[in-house]
Order: sequence, then C-alpha cells, then structure tokens
Amino acid sequence: MLGYEDFEEKTIARKEIFKGNIIDVYLDDVALPQGGTSQRELVFHPGGVGILAITPDNKIVLVKQFRKPLEKVILEIPAGKIEQGEGHTPLQTGMRELEEETGYQATAFEHLTSMYLSPGFSDELLHVYHAKNLTKVDEPLPQDEDEVLEIFELTLEEAKAKMATQEICDAKTIFAIQYWELLISKERD
Amino acid sequence: MLGYEDFEEKTIARKEIFKGNIIDVYLDDVALPQGGTSQRELVFHPGGVGILAITPDNKIVLVKQFRKPLEKVILEIPAGKIEQGEGHTPLQTGMRELEEETGYQATAFEHLTSMYLSPGFSDELLHVYHAKNLTKVDEPLPQDEDEVLEIFELTLEEAKAKMATQEICDAKTIFAIQYWELLISKERD
Repeated sequence: MLGYEDFEEKTIARKEIFKGNIIDVYLDDVALPQGGTSQRELVFHPGGVGILAITPDNKIVLVKQFRKPLEKVILEIPAGKIEQGEGHTPLQTGMRELEEETGYQATAFEHLTSMYLSPGFSDELLHVYHAKNLTKVDEPLPQDEDEVLEIFELTLEEAKAKMATQEICDAKTIFAIQYWELLISKERD
Repeated sequence: MLGYEDFEEKTIARKEIFKGNIIDVYLDDVALPQGGTSQRELVFHPGGVGILAITPDNKIVLVKQFRKPLEKVILEIPAGKIEQGEGHTPLQTGMRELEEETGYQATAFEHLTSMYLSPGFSDELLHVYHAKNLTKVDEPLPQDEDEVLEIFELTLEEAKAKMATQEICDAKTIFAIQYWELLISKERD
C-alpha cells in the first residue's frame, strides 16, 4: 500500500490566471512523485449548499433557473454558494437559500453528504442537507436580484421522469432524488 | 409558467480569460431578462466518464489518486475526461479508462446518468456507466504517465465506511455507491 508521499504532486510554481467573484483560476507547475513535472489547471471556489426539501404531501421542492454555462433552463434543488468573509456556516447558507428561493422554512436539517463536484480541477465542495418539517413563511427573505426562479413541487415519479428527459440533470439534484428514493425504499422494508 | 425567454441571459460581450489543456475560462457580460446586466464566470470542460464496476465477488473497484485542487489522496470510481478531437464517444472513453486504470474489461455497459457537476459556472458533463461481467485483462492498456494510481476493491459496507471518513468524497463516486445500494435494495424486494 502506497503512502501520501508516493502520490503527492508538489507545487514548483503557481501562476494566477484570474480572480473573480465566484472562482479563482491558477496554473501550477508540479513535481510528480515518480519524477518529472506536469501542469495542473486549478479552479478554487468557496463551496456551496444544496437542500433536499420534501413537502408534507411528499413532494420534492425544485427551482427552475437559467444556467449560463449550459445555455439551458434546468430544475435543481434549492442551493447557493457560501459567501466568503461573512462567517456563514454551510447550514446557515442552506437555511437562507431554502427560504430565499422557495419561501420554505424547516425545523430540522440533517447533513447528508459533502461532496467535491469535480476534484480533477476544482476544490468546490457541496454540502447537502435534508430539511425536515417544512412550513411556508408568510414574508420570506427576498430573492437575489439577478436571479429568475420558478418553484416546482414534484412527486418521486415526476422527478424521475424529469431525470429521464434531462430537465433534471445536475449532480446535487440527482444525488438528492436518489437519496430520497433510497430513503423511501428503506422505510418500506 | 414561465417560458425560456423569461429566463434567458443573453451574452453582450465575452472575454477570453484562459485556454488550457483541460479547461477554458471566459467572462461574459449578460443582459438579464428582468432588465439590467450582470457578469458570468464560465469554465468550459470537455466532459468525462465514470464507471461503476462491481467484481464477481460483489466489490466495487475504486482508484486511489492525488487530487491537486484538494491537496488530498482520495478514492474514486475509475474515470477520465473525454479527449477532444479524437472522436471518442463517452462509452469508448469509459471502456478505455476502466481498462487503463484497473486492468478490467466488461462485456456490457449500462448508461446510468449524465450529470452536470457544477452548472452554476461550468458545462462539465459527467456520464456514468455500469460495467457488467468484469474480467481481468492479461495485458491491459498502459496507465497515463503522469498518474499514480492504486486500485482497491471494497464491499458496500466498506465503501460506506470510507464515505463516512471522507476518503470517498466526490460526487460521481458517491452517486455510484448510492446507485449500487439502491440496486441491491431493489433486488432484495
């Protein structure tokens, strides 16, 4: 069995390519453990939070929105990125995004997973929580001004149909729906 | 219900930030459908393929490797990016990566999902296949020269324990293990 030093790629030089509002991009020259050098293209991201929210009538709450990289409108679980420098925990971020995007609050949040979305080039870590005992808020937090969102509530069968047609097509949402299906399957046992 | 034009953010200007071997980075000025403008940071990626491979003795095949953005060694399903300009389909890429990284071939591949990993800023699409009827190859394709890999075969319980300790911590692998658990749960019904 190999140790950490057998794998580690040490940075020889790091070049800053871009510092943005959401991502920073760097290009590293690395020394390979087996000898020689290579380059690594790196995107640093503050991370985000997604919320699996199931209504009292057993429907998943989804948000329809435009995604510029895809030039598509897709359906996702409520989610948002962690604001740097505000000292917000992932859970606080998730609670805020759930209310801002959907108008729902929850009495309990269970941490389901924290997953690196694309570890080959990016350090983006996405935390997923299951929001429990949802209630609609009378005066929810306002939505972000540069977002257009439409809320949908779907049964498991409807959500799986949207996965088949690729309207649901992103990793965190597919994870959340699969988690929900597994939960139902375990409750039935 | 809103239509596509209610969501669409039209590009006013696009600035090339970086063209790399794996990613290209752009900064767009966009016109928002509700009026006003905003900026979008965009990472374009050729996409990749991951393989859920279960051995005849019911273990998942995982690859341990160093991930520079995380400065960590983690366990992932065999995976690789789609080489541009080589005309390789996702399935061909998956078959090649499975053999190169693990020394296994399979007689059948079932498409499980294609998921955008981080649609807020990236168009990276990851296809996941389930490789069936694995056999070890006597002389497998050689591994990439700039990769150090170590192969592990874990039971479902062992894989779930590695998820709990975050040694398994990336989206495609968590999806694949969850899919496998759901498959076992359905077969038991």
